[in-house]
Amino acid sequence: MGKYAIGVDIGGTTVKIGMFDKDGNKLDCWEIPTRTENNGSEILPDVAASLKEKIKENDWKKADIIGIGIGVPGPVQSDGVVLRAVNLGWGVFNVKAIMEDLMDGIRCEAGNDANVAALGEMWKGGGRGFDDVVLVTLGTGIGGGIICKGNLLVGATGAGGEIGHLHLEDGEKEACNCGQHGCFEEYASATGAVRVAKRILEASKEDSVLRGKEFTCKDIFDAAKAGDPVAKKAADKYGYYLGKGLGMVASVVNPEIFVLGGGVAKAGDYLIELLKPSFANTVFPGASECKFAMAMLGNDAGMYGAAKLVL
Amino acid sequence: MGKYAIGVDIGGTTVKIGMFDKDGNKLDCWEIPTRTENNGSEILPDVAASLKEKIKENDWKKADIIGIGIGVPGPVQSDGVVLRAVNLGWGVFNVKAIMEDLMDGIRCEAGNDANVAALGEMWKGGGRGFDDVVLVTLGTGIGGGIICKGNLLVGATGAGGEIGHLHLEDGEKEACNCGQHGCFEEYASATGAVRVAKRILEASKEDSVLRGKEFTCKDIFDAAKAGDPVAKKAADKYGYYLGKGLGMVASVVNPEIFVLGGGVAKAGDYLIELLKPSFANTVFPGASECKFAMAMLGNDAGMYGAAKLVL
Repeated sequence: MGKYAIGVDIGGTTVKIGMFDKDGNKLDCWEIPTRTENNGSEILPDVAASLKEKIKENDWKKADIIGIGIGVPGPVQSDGVVLRAVNLGWGVFNVKAIMEDLMDGIRCEAGNDANVAALGEMWKGGGRGFDDVVLVTLGTGIGGGIICKGNLLVGATGAGGEIGHLHLEDGEKEACNCGQHGCFEEYASATGAVRVAKRILEASKEDSVLRGKEFTCKDIFDAAKAGDPVAKKAADKYGYYLGKGLGMVASVVNPEIFVLGGGVAKAGDYLIELLKPSFANTVFPGASECKFAMAMLGNDAGMYGAAKLVL
Repeated sequence: MGKYAIGVDIGGTTVKIGMFDKDGNKLDCWEIPTRTENNGSEILPDVAASLKEKIKENDWKKADIIGIGIGVPGPVQSDGVVLRAVNLGWGVFNVKAIMEDLMDGIRCEAGNDANVAALGEMWKGGGRGFDDVVLVTLGTGIGGGIICKGNLLVGATGAGGEIGHLHLEDGEKEACNCGQHGCFEEYASATGAVRVAKRILEASKEDSVLRGKEFTCKDIFDAAKAGDPVAKKAADKYGYYLGKGLGMVASVVNPEIFVLGGGVAKAGDYLIELLKPSFANTVFPGASECKFAMAMLGNDAGMYGAAKLVL
């Protein structure tokens, strides 16, 4: 019986690797650079070499290792096939099979990075103790991961839980990065918050500390808390969009808890207060008894969740 | 090892009961009336008595029976607790535990009727051969059931897959039965289709065979096919709403196939043609490669799916 699980979170610039015992105690973790040259063909061999060195250092036997979980920034099917990971230069191939080959048959599993992060937050972070969990990462875009009764909702082509591209608003003129119009992340990501605030500034002549300079989502919230009326409108509007989107997600999957992560979630309880009214006005009443919490693992969530893939 | 599975679909007026072998071949099926008096306290004892009689008749041993699955018209948690079934007069209690007691310890499982029907359609109906399936029942309302990698998405409080109450449209004045405004089923159920068509009639003076009389969703489609321009507008608008809602669901759960059931689905391929344009304009591109098929089991889907709960 194996004793240790390894979690590998492959990002666009670095790979985070962690070694865990069965209970999720982190024994060791380190990073290696992500070499994206040659369509990222060196990435998995680099990870394997680094792992082998560390395993040797710790004097672990092959039988000590339960498995290796790998988070990938792109859609990954449940059989381990990545469909494309633009940031890594990857096309379509079976990550699980190749990694098992590189690691001399040690069991490997692969998953999408946002989904795997959700698993991490359920295991050891803000969703601990729950098994119907939706992780929502509010950063440049909106990432999502849905867990139902402890299992990841992977979807047919690895796009399960991609809630950032849920259609939220009709009549949007600007296209989302995905090509559609009116996606959740066009309004409720950090970038979306700024976009919406700029529209509010343009539509009014009211004075505001936000006017005439570049600002971030945090600046909007800070100014709103300090009483700036335009910033207050922008923050409320942000809460409206976030609550609406999460209410729609809850109507479909009925989670116990939403775990909010990413830069925007640093606003903490203030964010939850902002989103609650429109969440309540949107969600199917049978799915409305839903908690909200903050993510706790930060950038380590993917590493934890990747390890959990094999446990 | 047991050989037979029993599926019980409890409706507001009748209970449908089926006996199946492991491969899903229906060996027998019959109905008993649903006695809703005394808060439906006789329903499960009636089912148990009927089952025992049939088991005796067939001379089955207790060990022959793998289990009994029960579909209930209300939210059912994964532990078997029904949270309320208005049509049956039921409050909150553990259906699984009570039925196991009534059946002398034979294993029982319970699920929501729409969810269980999805399981039936995946097993033996329009979703056969797929394991990421969304069943959409287009009738008086919209019922839904979501299956991920062969498992029902039950949700925290048994409301998983209640897609009929996904928020679809802003600014709706009329309330949905659920109390919210702008739910999917306000537009894309059979009732919703008629409501939308009436609005289109009111807004124009154009002549139409639909004008000045009561009509059904089928009448709208028939008139549209026959070239009635107002009916054509109403049918297109219906397709717009249906495609939009399904596109939103697909962006969250990324199914392989939508299985369409209920009265409206009798329109067949015509319905799929109606919904496709707005589905394509709404869905996250990574989840857009999705099939559409018609449900095949009709009112038997719940009975099949209930049996599948124990297999």
